[in-house]
Amino acid sequence: MASKFTELAIDCADPAALARFWCAVLGYEVQDEEDGFVGIGSPAVPDDQRGPVAPALTFARVPEGKTVKNRLHIDVSPTDRDQHDEVRRLLDLGARHADVGQGDERWVVLADPEGNEFCVLADRRP
Amino acid sequence: MASKFTELAIDCADPAALARFWCAVLGYEVQDEEDGFVGIGSPAVPDDQRGPVAPALTFARVPEGKTVKNRLHIDVSPTDRDQHDEVRRLLDLGARHADVGQGDERWVVLADPEGNEFCVLADRRP
Repeated sequence: MASKFTELAIDCADPAALARFWCAVLGYEVQDEEDGFVGIGSPAVPDDQRGPVAPALTFARVPEGKTVKNRLHIDVSPTDRDQHDEVRRLLDLGARHADVGQGDERWVVLADPEGNEFCVLADRRP
Repeated sequence: MASKFTELAIDCADPAALARFWCAVLGYEVQDEEDGFVGIGSPAVPDDQRGPVAPALTFARVPEGKTVKNRLHIDVSPTDRDQHDEVRRLLDLGARHADVGQGDERWVVLADPEGNEFCVLADRRP
């Protein structure tokens, strides 16, 4: 292997608010904060080149707004509760249901507070 | 923590070709393939809920093309060579340089074969 997927960079209007939302979704913490920029990551991950890496998320303020359905989106998997309970938690955090024409699927489509679509997959517990 | 970032879903025109490119970038392998859909992931990652997860990438064919700069983009970090050598490898794989107004930065902005912007960060080796 020659490269690792170490960060997902997200353009947004309000980096601090969006970072707060995603910290709550993923159990991440703020690791870098400058004017117009916030980086968040897993507190559990050492900076180790060898093992798997949970990508950091970075939020950078941009002047332009979201205009179309994002071509890339995050899928998350609940790890300590079922999908229904996790969706309810995320709605309480500020997510909302989103319709991207998905029909009746096993995943649930939500949008974050800036309208970025993401999916909650069915939980993988046995 | 209640959710993990387990997949990044990418809309595209040619799932098989784009999956092939990203497998070569990240050392991933094809793990799921259906009509209009390819899923790739790290061969090194067990399906373990406890440790960090290197997200799978999924490529789904959509009718619409890319129209604007993606609001989300991947940043990759070279792990076994320096940034310059890694950029050259990625260009050979089918990436091209991209200008998103970044100016003179430590990272290099490229686009994948369907024009999705991504960055190659400076290597993190000591």
